[in-house]
Amino acid sequence: MTERLVVIGGDAAGMSAASQARRLRGPQELSIVAFDRGNYLSYSACGIPYFVGGAVQEIDKLIVRTPEEFASKQDIDARIRHEVTEIDLDKGAVKVTSSDDGAEAWEGFDKLLVATGATPRRPSLPHADADGIFGVQILDDGRAIFEAMRERRPQRAAVVGGGYIGLEMAEAFKMRGLDVAVVEASSHPMPSLDDDIAALIADAMESMGIAFHSSERVEAFEAKDGWVSAVVTSKRTIPADIVVLGLGVAPNVELAEAAGIPIGPSGAISVDRRMQTGVEAVWAAGDCSEKFHRVSRRSVSMALGTHANKEGRVAGINLGGGYATFPGVIGTAVSKLCDTEVGRTGLNEDEAGGAGFTFITATVDSTTRAGYYPETQPIKTKLLAERGSGRLLGAQIVGKEGAAKRIDVLATAIWNEMSVAELLNIDLSYAPPFSPVWDPVLIAARKAWQLVEQSAKKP
Amino acid sequence: MTERLVVIGGDAAGMSAASQARRLRGPQELSIVAFDRGNYLSYSACGIPYFVGGAVQEIDKLIVRTPEEFASKQDIDARIRHEVTEIDLDKGAVKVTSSDDGAEAWEGFDKLLVATGATPRRPSLPHADADGIFGVQILDDGRAIFEAMRERRPQRAAVVGGGYIGLEMAEAFKMRGLDVAVVEASSHPMPSLDDDIAALIADAMESMGIAFHSSERVEAFEAKDGWVSAVVTSKRTIPADIVVLGLGVAPNVELAEAAGIPIGPSGAISVDRRMQTGVEAVWAAGDCSEKFHRVSRRSVSMALGTHANKEGRVAGINLGGGYATFPGVIGTAVSKLCDTEVGRTGLNEDEAGGAGFTFITATVDSTTRAGYYPETQPIKTKLLAERGSGRLLGAQIVGKEGAAKRIDVLATAIWNEMSVAELLNIDLSYAPPFSPVWDPVLIAARKAWQLVEQSAKKP
Repeated sequence: MTERLVVIGGDAAGMSAASQARRLRGPQELSIVAFDRGNYLSYSACGIPYFVGGAVQEIDKLIVRTPEEFASKQDIDARIRHEVTEIDLDKGAVKVTSSDDGAEAWEGFDKLLVATGATPRRPSLPHADADGIFGVQILDDGRAIFEAMRERRPQRAAVVGGGYIGLEMAEAFKMRGLDVAVVEASSHPMPSLDDDIAALIADAMESMGIAFHSSERVEAFEAKDGWVSAVVTSKRTIPADIVVLGLGVAPNVELAEAAGIPIGPSGAISVDRRMQTGVEAVWAAGDCSEKFHRVSRRSVSMALGTHANKEGRVAGINLGGGYATFPGVIGTAVSKLCDTEVGRTGLNEDEAGGAGFTFITATVDSTTRAGYYPETQPIKTKLLAERGSGRLLGAQIVGKEGAAKRIDVLATAIWNEMSVAELLNIDLSYAPPFSPVWDPVLIAARKAWQLVEQSAKKP
Repeated sequence: MTERLVVIGGDAAGMSAASQARRLRGPQELSIVAFDRGNYLSYSACGIPYFVGGAVQEIDKLIVRTPEEFASKQDIDARIRHEVTEIDLDKGAVKVTSSDDGAEAWEGFDKLLVATGATPRRPSLPHADADGIFGVQILDDGRAIFEAMRERRPQRAAVVGGGYIGLEMAEAFKMRGLDVAVVEASSHPMPSLDDDIAALIADAMESMGIAFHSSERVEAFEAKDGWVSAVVTSKRTIPADIVVLGLGVAPNVELAEAAGIPIGPSGAISVDRRMQTGVEAVWAAGDCSEKFHRVSRRSVSMALGTHANKEGRVAGINLGGGYATFPGVIGTAVSKLCDTEVGRTGLNEDEAGGAGFTFITATVDSTTRAGYYPETQPIKTKLLAERGSGRLLGAQIVGKEGAAKRIDVLATAIWNEMSVAELLNIDLSYAPPFSPVWDPVLIAARKAWQLVEQSAKKP
């Protein structure tokens, strides 16, 4: 008997899962149908800022696979412009509305994967629903921003929220020649960084000519004829012809919640390590599902394409009758602003304190290549290590070309619960075009270990 | 009572140790004297090819610290042009000859650090001692090559041995406009790589116009008026005005061996994890000392500045009365040839087989950035994983800009004895300018895990 798998949401998590399940079970054993309410499947939403900024010329380049390809290559029935509006667990069916003709239908499932993603947070403020205020989450958002740019020729952009997406969009607008202002409620850009590291991001923004207003809350938007015209903060009114919201995202759990699928403490859908929800037939993956943070040991909601892909793979293997587990996350991220690169992993100071750790911090300045080698670039590395054990808890890197990807070494070290004493002797690669003889990562570990040892002597 | 530490050899290992010992114990407690037979202390020998090639303009840039600085900043009596010619353990003294005036003196020690380095292997062949045939190991070698280039204006360079140093020197000569030929006895350049990966290095050499003769043994040199004029191989005679030997190095153990300090199976000085030799008062570090390979679990001789620095630090802490251990090496290395980057870590196929492992190999092609992102570059990643356990045993990467330093993630994974199943889910950083959504490292791990699983099903 052919089982039927229904997938709600056709981006990274949903379609990775569908593909994996298909690899394990052929069309005779498992029929797979996926619904997405947008116009695209299986795309790189992270590429949107580079499409808006012009580094990527065509939106189609961000698309990994089309519905036609899923049908012909994998026998997966993937339908765009189809929104699932209800899950009926008793009936084992979802209600689907076609946005082309408004037709509604119930589609039965034996197994259901919820991969509904997340939605940019939109503050409840006057005129927050005006046209010209965009979130950046799905590929349709990217297309809408691009079309607004082409049709309305905005001169001034405002970005609300100075996190990764906000700053990447600020750079994109700058590359298109707009005046750009960024408003951030906290004291520094990229709130997932500590303020001393983030200060260098603020410097980069300044040198790019991006106005940055920190410690300012947005209180309202202004609009003319329904289109946004300004952002009003606690301190000023910023005229703007286009606005992007970078206030983070909320997992799309309404459908699941209404059906009685359990939601976790983070607000995302609760899943076990195989990505199964509290309901046996129902699985979840991607931005809508909760993740285990391996350092804080807490359940978190974290929207990132790299997690969505991995979780989708795990869910798909399990849905296909195999066995795989998702081991959790440690909060690794990387970004760049003009020629300034930044990476982070593990816990920052606030997070480490909040998780109950006592820790030291070590920050060192070094170079990406041997100091005497041409094109060597500055790199600042900050480590957080637990007092006593010296266990590496978190790391942040900021610098120029070649700096940020080093965060992956520290992510791998944190993943393995290494102490900074172990880390400082690790056999990393060395040649003058690639690093000083002590890689910046090791220099930072050496300093951190000194501070851990000193802290052990204090009362 | 003031103890006296004598250090033989004033480069990375010796002077790192001297500095560390001084940090822990002041001049009243410990007097430190270091001897080096060359003209320089504490320099980056790895920078020599870039000085010869012109990327680094002045040889002084490769010097970390001068004898005057050691004296004034750290109260370390470091004497260049002083060669230690004998160690007398009973007397607790070394015999030192000044190369300026030929004066000999016995210098007493309470503790001795042997950091005598290594010497390029020179084959016992006709005219192998002709002028114009250079090793590349100490900074004086770099100066001698540079002066030969200036004075004799060579047009044709031959490099014997296609390892890291050989290829870096080949590029350096090429940058100076010379015709360059490289002769390598094995079937491919960089013998520490597997042949499939090394083939891409051979391609890079070809596109640079470097003649590469593999599977050819050097049988003799020719010389005119005492200066080298050709390299004679099993297949041809290669005219050459200057020759560099890249046949590896032999640890300088003669002094130690003559004094009765035990030598290990690798031919380097045997040390424990604190860098103490078999003689209580004598320690050793750097290229002359043996290393423990953490994957093969064998004692190896491996000359690399990054190990010398770390071992020097460990020896210095112990000599200063502290406690530190050196955990060993895993054979990580990185290099570049024009715009082709290469990195390796752990065991290659021959080494893994030799160490008794049964393993699978997985090789994947990917890109350094998201496929759609400008300036994305090719990267090929090869992993070796143990059959059954899936433990990562070795990795090799070759590609263009941004490729090679990813080897450090794999080095950190090998260091922690991770399996490819664990590795494929690790939380590495992702953003389109830095990697595809699945980092090449993870794609390779994913493929390796599939192969490990398949191999488990075979009889």
